[in-house]
Amino acid sequence: MSSSPQPPGETAPVSGRRRITGFSNPTVKAIRALRDKKHRKGAGRFLAEGLRLLTDARASGHLPEVLVLSDARDPHPLLAELEAAVTATGGEVLETTPDILSKITGKDNPQGVAGVFAEFDTSLAAIDRAGADIWLVAQALRDPGNLGTMLRTGDAIGAGGLILIDDCADPFGVEAVRASMGAVFTQRIARAPWEEFLPWLRGGAGQLVAASLRDARPYREAPYAAPCFILVGNESRGLPEDYEMACDLRVTMPMKGRADSLNAAVAAAVLGYEVLAGLGR
Amino acid sequence: MSSSPQPPGETAPVSGRRRITGFSNPTVKAIRALRDKKHRKGAGRFLAEGLRLLTDARASGHLPEVLVLSDARDPHPLLAELEAAVTATGGEVLETTPDILSKITGKDNPQGVAGVFAEFDTSLAAIDRAGADIWLVAQALRDPGNLGTMLRTGDAIGAGGLILIDDCADPFGVEAVRASMGAVFTQRIARAPWEEFLPWLRGGAGQLVAASLRDARPYREAPYAAPCFILVGNESRGLPEDYEMACDLRVTMPMKGRADSLNAAVAAAVLGYEVLAGLGR
Repeated sequence: MSSSPQPPGETAPVSGRRRITGFSNPTVKAIRALRDKKHRKGAGRFLAEGLRLLTDARASGHLPEVLVLSDARDPHPLLAELEAAVTATGGEVLETTPDILSKITGKDNPQGVAGVFAEFDTSLAAIDRAGADIWLVAQALRDPGNLGTMLRTGDAIGAGGLILIDDCADPFGVEAVRASMGAVFTQRIARAPWEEFLPWLRGGAGQLVAASLRDARPYREAPYAAPCFILVGNESRGLPEDYEMACDLRVTMPMKGRADSLNAAVAAAVLGYEVLAGLGR
Repeated sequence: MSSSPQPPGETAPVSGRRRITGFSNPTVKAIRALRDKKHRKGAGRFLAEGLRLLTDARASGHLPEVLVLSDARDPHPLLAELEAAVTATGGEVLETTPDILSKITGKDNPQGVAGVFAEFDTSLAAIDRAGADIWLVAQALRDPGNLGTMLRTGDAIGAGGLILIDDCADPFGVEAVRASMGAVFTQRIARAPWEEFLPWLRGGAGQLVAASLRDARPYREAPYAAPCFILVGNESRGLPEDYEMACDLRVTMPMKGRADSLNAAVAAAVLGYEVLAGLGR
């Protein structure tokens, strides 16, 4: 243990934990900055919160580099295991007040624990298409809640992961991570422009399917085939026409009312569950 | 036209429109306050934005009491019709700057038009169960985005409306209205505590269905019957056990991953589309 003076807003570590009580502490500032996309990109790190989520992360082979504990947390055996695992792998454990944790995560009622994780490889090389029957693909998806919900749905339907085409929201943003309910750790995530994605897809087996109004078949009667890549488009504009026409299969879902489209995450889920059933899984 | 002096931040009306250029104008403040639930409740009014949404509202018989136009709007025949209809029914038309409209709607890039609407009757008496084969029911749904998305999905599957049980988010909040994509005007909305809802439901025909893990049948093989009421629970806690047990049918959807639940709006949609198909609609 060093005898050098503590940074502002810290007291000396006890039992391996650094204790931080100052809002202006540089570590607090650095972690909090991860809520901002630019800082996140520069640091290659992101923030996830909650014992459930951090436990899922650990079970998927992802341990936080920094574990932040609220001193108002409830004790839990899984939390103790998590702390031990983080310490054993050379990670850092911080203890702080609920107010400071709230400031870090941007939530009024913060959960008792948060973690700082290294971002993963998000190149198409990270995708082993033979590893799953279904893959979700989103194009220019702007809403981080939709993105996180698609990850969560992907986990539920046994998809391998989510491929983000063109300019999508950041899957490592706090809101996307939160909406994913841990699936950000269990689903593979790749990012690629369309010009890179399409040749990659055509370089192997893969059926590309989109919900569409153009030359489409009823979604309950379509011949889905694994590995099936389900493509959904931007929230306002939908898919560009040439992207739709590049698909192997265009399907349409009933639209009984005034609206002509579903929420993007809803469309992915309805189609995803249909493909799951269509493949007999 | 009155010759009395204008309120602060206004110029004299031209062609029936009041022109407002001051942020501190009392009308601007009053409309902006509708973003706050308490003010909204007191005023019995809510805010909706965008030409598409206001056109859907008009087609469903809802005209705004106040129409707010940005002076940076693009001219559109539907907008001209809307303005004429509002004026003809004694409504008010305001013209203001994009900055002020942005302040009113809380959006950085405001659409060119917004409207102030009177809230509707949200008692169960507003629900004519024979009017539709499917009704969505949400219990303690806290997220306004989920609520709006359920309205949008309800429109798509031809549901009659959304019944909000216990303490739900406000369907007339800006975020819910936005996520509904206009369905807040086309779907019936009712609010009731469970103790009132259940006797109402049992007072007529109606099958109550919930996604559940308790004594549940596979959702693709369940005997759905119209009018079918699809019940989804709170985002964190799900449905209380006694609510589930009061259902006529409990169904289960595949969960292939680590998660044991879907996003509430996603669950409602997957089940809603299945019921639609099951009913042969």
